[in-house]
Amino acid sequence: MLMSRLLGERFKEKPADAAMPSHIFLLRGGYMRQVANGIFSLLPPAKKIVDKIENIIREEMDAIDGQEVLMPVVLPADLWKESGRWESVGSELMRIKDRAGMDMLLGMTHEEAAVHLSRSEALSYTKYPFMIYQIQTKFRDEPRSRGGLIRVREFTMKDAYSFHTSQEDLEAYYMRCHEAYEKIYARAGLKNVISVFSDTGMMGGSAAHEFMLLNEFGEDSLVICKECGYSANMEIAKSIHKNRGKAASTIEEVYTPDMKDIDAIAKKFNTDASNTIKATVFATDNSTKPLVVFIRGDLEVNEAKLKRVIGSNVYPYTDYENTDINFGFIGPYNLTSDCDVLYDESLRDENDLICGANKDNYHLSGVCMARDVKPESYVDVSKVLDGGICPKCGKPISLTRGIEVGNIFQLGTKYSKSMNMEYVDANGERQTPIMGCYGIGVGRLLASIIEDNHDDYGPIWPMSVAPWQVHICSLNNQNEDVKSQAEKIYKELLDNNLTVVLDDRKAAPGIQFADADLLGIPVRVVVSQRGLANGEIEISTRDKSIKMSVAKETAADEVIKLVKSMM
Amino acid sequence: MLMSRLLGERFKEKPADAAMPSHIFLLRGGYMRQVANGIFSLLPPAKKIVDKIENIIREEMDAIDGQEVLMPVVLPADLWKESGRWESVGSELMRIKDRAGMDMLLGMTHEEAAVHLSRSEALSYTKYPFMIYQIQTKFRDEPRSRGGLIRVREFTMKDAYSFHTSQEDLEAYYMRCHEAYEKIYARAGLKNVISVFSDTGMMGGSAAHEFMLLNEFGEDSLVICKECGYSANMEIAKSIHKNRGKAASTIEEVYTPDMKDIDAIAKKFNTDASNTIKATVFATDNSTKPLVVFIRGDLEVNEAKLKRVIGSNVYPYTDYENTDINFGFIGPYNLTSDCDVLYDESLRDENDLICGANKDNYHLSGVCMARDVKPESYVDVSKVLDGGICPKCGKPISLTRGIEVGNIFQLGTKYSKSMNMEYVDANGERQTPIMGCYGIGVGRLLASIIEDNHDDYGPIWPMSVAPWQVHICSLNNQNEDVKSQAEKIYKELLDNNLTVVLDDRKAAPGIQFADADLLGIPVRVVVSQRGLANGEIEISTRDKSIKMSVAKETAADEVIKLVKSMM
Repeated sequence: MLMSRLLGERFKEKPADAAMPSHIFLLRGGYMRQVANGIFSLLPPAKKIVDKIENIIREEMDAIDGQEVLMPVVLPADLWKESGRWESVGSELMRIKDRAGMDMLLGMTHEEAAVHLSRSEALSYTKYPFMIYQIQTKFRDEPRSRGGLIRVREFTMKDAYSFHTSQEDLEAYYMRCHEAYEKIYARAGLKNVISVFSDTGMMGGSAAHEFMLLNEFGEDSLVICKECGYSANMEIAKSIHKNRGKAASTIEEVYTPDMKDIDAIAKKFNTDASNTIKATVFATDNSTKPLVVFIRGDLEVNEAKLKRVIGSNVYPYTDYENTDINFGFIGPYNLTSDCDVLYDESLRDENDLICGANKDNYHLSGVCMARDVKPESYVDVSKVLDGGICPKCGKPISLTRGIEVGNIFQLGTKYSKSMNMEYVDANGERQTPIMGCYGIGVGRLLASIIEDNHDDYGPIWPMSVAPWQVHICSLNNQNEDVKSQAEKIYKELLDNNLTVVLDDRKAAPGIQFADADLLGIPVRVVVSQRGLANGEIEISTRDKSIKMSVAKETAADEVIKLVKSMM
Repeated sequence: MLMSRLLGERFKEKPADAAMPSHIFLLRGGYMRQVANGIFSLLPPAKKIVDKIENIIREEMDAIDGQEVLMPVVLPADLWKESGRWESVGSELMRIKDRAGMDMLLGMTHEEAAVHLSRSEALSYTKYPFMIYQIQTKFRDEPRSRGGLIRVREFTMKDAYSFHTSQEDLEAYYMRCHEAYEKIYARAGLKNVISVFSDTGMMGGSAAHEFMLLNEFGEDSLVICKECGYSANMEIAKSIHKNRGKAASTIEEVYTPDMKDIDAIAKKFNTDASNTIKATVFATDNSTKPLVVFIRGDLEVNEAKLKRVIGSNVYPYTDYENTDINFGFIGPYNLTSDCDVLYDESLRDENDLICGANKDNYHLSGVCMARDVKPESYVDVSKVLDGGICPKCGKPISLTRGIEVGNIFQLGTKYSKSMNMEYVDANGERQTPIMGCYGIGVGRLLASIIEDNHDDYGPIWPMSVAPWQVHICSLNNQNEDVKSQAEKIYKELLDNNLTVVLDDRKAAPGIQFADADLLGIPVRVVVSQRGLANGEIEISTRDKSIKMSVAKETAADEVIKLVKSMM
């Protein structure tokens, strides 16, 4: 590829609304352009990287007996009505009507389509297990796209679906897929990926893992134990609480004028927030009553955990006119309002707590949960805190941030059962297959590779996914000697089946180097007048670990050797 | 690949609503399944073929300096408003609203997106010419999908867009692309493709060619001169008419009770339909008046040609209550109704014609166009007839049918101008680039390969696109000797990087052969008890041109040699 021909302008300025390095460099390096909110076109260098990523994924999916298929982007609503997701999924599902007035949708995931495709093709147990996958365009009408290719609305995804005749077989295959994913990330040059237990969310099913690239810009909060290796998404991580060990005490009513928040109350009682009870009120989809969640005053409700516990979405409660709840002074003792109530595990058997008295400007102190409140049960809905207790080994845990670069789910029979997929087993009985599904977003993986491999000047592409292998800077193209030497090496490298960019422009060395940094090609060759005066050509790596001058006669051979050593 | 593992049931029965061999075999052979009207999922064999077709296309696009990009499926309406097509394209354009209420659409072609992507990247003439292409999913809300993958709603397409600084440069590139297309079809195994002049239709522009696979099931009618090679789509082919050379005659009014059609009139006057004038009445988008087209009685109006002449859609006229046109008795002489009128070239300077008298139950004979009707001009809107006159050499032409397998357009500045794409030329002046665009539907090409390569039992895949290269039928898998011999060859072929299917099922030979025919793999190996008794294995080709028995020891080598000879 000649630089003079390559489509895609590169520029110096930091784009206005970009914060993540991948977002910045993808724009500055001429890799992509935004077409609409969360929708991008890819320019040639990005397309080449995408192809390489897809090939790595394809090889690893084939290695675990995957069979590649292609399902549609536009799906009939009927399939999603069979599974129930036409109703249950929110407005991130793009619903459309065709010219005949039929309900259709843009696939954001393809469990239904995979069952539709498979249910007529695998009627006997002898066909099982099998896995089908595709690498295909998906659309998800994200309310908040961000970070360039990190969170978009249209994206290319590898999604795989496996079908089994037993839970054991699913679990064994799930582990094989877990290993395949680890290989994919390693081959793509991601050094900091961990897998964490995660919420099954809208997919349903019994178990799930997310693969997380540890990264400060990540949207996900992760809970990690450096001691025992426990790791989980904050949305699912179990909170462990140590009882404060206080003695029972007597309830007293205290005048607390206008003291409606925990800080003010803790100050008034000259104590710590952990000695108080916080009340958080939600509206839900499955009850018309307000839901009051009581939790230790120093903790926060994790809404994802709460959603899972009650099996419904939750929203901040705002319908103040239709409840007699005394906001600011809510407490679990003598709460007579018509509401649903949950108690977080952090309050289990605690004594001597301060809480609202359910009347204006009064709080109670000395409340004992078992004696005064007597909850039937407690639930775990609190956010894990940094330095909290590891649920596995009891040592302190850490919080960190991550970018989700893949996920795998044990789906069970959620889709196969609702969509009437059946096979006949060895005894002639009809059975419902058990499913798993496995996703990787290709564009997000591309961006994540930059997050994990860059310096201040641009991406440092691993050889496995680099758009080209070698970048030749021909520093003085006005000079015939330099020009012909650069062209000679270019040709030699192409003849040896290397992929090469030749900067054939009459651009200043500074511009050539800046553009080379933005293109991030792993091996660089610099042909200059100064070097040629000594009969030498410079070879270096984009990551600056290697830099050497070699005789111009052996330069091409040295480059070939270097590229091979990096493959 | 083991047959026992391959996903996709094959069956014997002809599918109910399939007429074309490609449609029948794609269903019967387990290549695809319908998901909705005109929307299909591809099973593993079809996906493999698609990959091979795409690679052929990619190589030929790269060979003419194409740069691969990826544009979105979902596009903002704004881009199509810029070009004017948001309004001008009908309901085959899938219009949608996102969650924010923004108008969006599913791309059915990507001129707008290509200009959007390029207009910020090619500001100087030094960047020109360039061509970008993508292989990507498109959606077109076809009212009448048909023929399996021949006419669908969702499809994968290679679409390419070139940008030039002069018409000459566009034309030279257009020819290179024409040649690249010929190579693609040849490599994909299509033997009967011709290119014909075609209508530019909704794309606009100055010139266009369609590549047509000659095929009885084709939707398109083609006009071909076997003498001089002239070829054109019927929608654009020029009609040439020989004047009948009749002398001027006197007008007479004749009583023709209830004789409202040309056949009845010709019979009444004991003459040929070519001596009459036919009137066809249309409604249009650009006039509230009826449009009456007069044409020689033995000819038909070609609506595509008429549309182009008047620059509007045309519809059969049905608003009988709002016109005093005397249907059944319309003629160009003394026509006083309020209507627009066009005269087809077939009537130019003709004498002694029979036509309606514009009153009930009367016709006129002896009408002379120049003397009595005096048209200001004639237009060419007639359908070419089989045996008509070649507009290039004057010899008789033929009609035939074809499947459109690709098209190329000289777009001119239609999109670059309306979307304000500009570059600075060598003199520092702002200029508008000139564009071409070039499309191939991948799925339709796949189906067309079957149309051109099949027998009664299934597809005969050319080696270049075959899903696998070799199919091993192991006829008696119960027999250890047969089984191990088949597995041995399977392994040897895989070790030599061939792609192979091994039928490892305990299925009867008839079933194995029928399935092998449906999978259409070019080279077949048959391992049987009978053959092994003689120490032999059978090797044949799917097209039946080769069939031989070879010693089992040399079988793998012979297969490798045969596959190489077919590449």
